[in-house]
Amino acid sequence: MIPLDHPRYRSLVTREHLVAMAVRGVIAPEGLIAHGRGEAFDYLLGESSTESAHRAARCAAALLRTAKRPVFSVNGNTAALAAKEIAVFQETTGIPVEVNLFHRTPERVEAVTSWLAAHGVRVLSGVPERLVPLSHDRGLCLPSGIGAADLVIVPLEDGDRCGALKRMGKTVITIDLNPLSRTARTADLTIVDEVTRAIPLITAAWQELARDTGSGRAAEMVAAIDNRVFLAEALQAIGERCFRALD
Amino acid sequence: MIPLDHPRYRSLVTREHLVAMAVRGVIAPEGLIAHGRGEAFDYLLGESSTESAHRAARCAAALLRTAKRPVFSVNGNTAALAAKEIAVFQETTGIPVEVNLFHRTPERVEAVTSWLAAHGVRVLSGVPERLVPLSHDRGLCLPSGIGAADLVIVPLEDGDRCGALKRMGKTVITIDLNPLSRTARTADLTIVDEVTRAIPLITAAWQELARDTGSGRAAEMVAAIDNRVFLAEALQAIGERCFRALD
Repeated sequence: MIPLDHPRYRSLVTREHLVAMAVRGVIAPEGLIAHGRGEAFDYLLGESSTESAHRAARCAAALLRTAKRPVFSVNGNTAALAAKEIAVFQETTGIPVEVNLFHRTPERVEAVTSWLAAHGVRVLSGVPERLVPLSHDRGLCLPSGIGAADLVIVPLEDGDRCGALKRMGKTVITIDLNPLSRTARTADLTIVDEVTRAIPLITAAWQELARDTGSGRAAEMVAAIDNRVFLAEALQAIGERCFRALD
Repeated sequence: MIPLDHPRYRSLVTREHLVAMAVRGVIAPEGLIAHGRGEAFDYLLGESSTESAHRAARCAAALLRTAKRPVFSVNGNTAALAAKEIAVFQETTGIPVEVNLFHRTPERVEAVTSWLAAHGVRVLSGVPERLVPLSHDRGLCLPSGIGAADLVIVPLEDGDRCGALKRMGKTVITIDLNPLSRTARTADLTIVDEVTRAIPLITAAWQELARDTGSGRAAEMVAAIDNRVFLAEALQAIGERCFRALD
C-alpha cells in the first residue's frame, strides 16, 4: 500500500494502476515506458494545466464543433488513464470513439474496448481495413470511423501515425506532454497537458461554445490557431521551471 | 523490426530490450515506467554526457578510491541496461557488486544475478538481513556488502532508499537523469547522466587517478565536491535546451 502522505502519492497510484492495466492487457509494455516519459514532462510542467493548455483545449473544442465527421481515436494508455473522462466527453459531444492501437492484436483491441465499455463509452465496431498509409497492422482503422473522418483527435499518438493521418488530409488534434515530440510538432493542434486534465477541459469548452448562438465564434477561433505558439509556450514553461529551481 | 534509419533507432532498440527484460523478470513493470522518465530527461539533456557529468564522474572515481569499503548496488534497470559496463567497471576497480532490488522477490534477485553473471559480473552472495531502516523487504541487504560499506554507488535509486542509506552514515553516489528527483538531491554525489555512458566515465576516471602517485589528488577532489553545483548545471542545461528549441 502506498501511504496517503507520500509526496508522490497520486503519481504512485497511477503507476500501480497502469502496471495492473498492463498485466490485464489493456496497455502494452511499451505503454509503460511511454507513460514514464509523460510523467517526466508533466513534472517539469508543474502537474497542472497551464493557461496555454486551457487555450489550446478551447481551440480543440472549436475545431471539433466545426468538423463534419470528427472521431476520437483511443489507444491503450489513453483508455487506461482516462476512460471516465472519455465517457463524459462522448456523452456531451456525441463524437464517436474508435479504438486504434499501435501494438495492435485482437486481444488488446478487445481488452481496451471492454475497459472503455465498462466506463460507459460506446465504442465503434466494424471490420478494420488498411486505410492509413503505414505498414502492417499499424495501418488498420474502421472505414466508417477514422477512415471517413475529416478530423481525428488522437491523444498520446506515435509520430509516424500522426504524420500518416495528416497525409490522408485529416485535421489532427493531439494531447501530448512532450512539446518536442514529432507528434506534437506534426499535429494541427497540440494540447500540452496530461490526458485526464485535458479531456475535461475540451468537454467544458465544447459546452461553453454550445451556449453561443451560431457557429461564427468557433470558426473565428479555428482561423486563428497557430500550433507553434502552444509548443513554444510549453517549452518556455519547462525552461522557466528549471531556472526557478536553480534559485 | 525497427528500421535502422529511424530517427529514434537507439532509443527504440533500448525500449525493446527493456520490454524483453521485463518479460524475463529482470526488471519490474514499474521499472519500465522509470525508464520512460529517464528517457525524457535524457532527451532534454541532449542524449550525451555533459561536461558537468564528466566532472561528476571524476569526483565519483575520487570518492571510490578514497573509500574503505565501497560497494556497487545494482537494481534491475541498471543490470538490464548496463551489465557489460558494470563488468568492465568491476574488473578495473575490484569493487564488489551487490544486487539490491526495490521490488524484491527471490525470483527477481536470481534473474538479475544470472543476467549480470552472464556478462561477467561477480555478484556478492550471502544471506540478506534487514539492516537498512526501511519497512519489509525494502530494508534487506547483505551484512558483508552494503551492510558493511562506507560508500555505496546506487544508480537509478528510489528516494526513500537513498535517504535510508544516508541515515546509516554511508556516503552515497547515484546516477540519475532527473536533477530534481529526491534521490539526486539526497545523494552526496549525483552524476546526471545515462547509466551506460556514466559507468564507463567513472571507470576511465578511476584509471586516470590510478596513474597518479599517492592519494593526495583524490582526497583534494573529494574535499571540493558540492553536489548542488552538478544539479544546478543539469537544470541549466535542460532549461537552455528548451529555450534554444524556441528559436
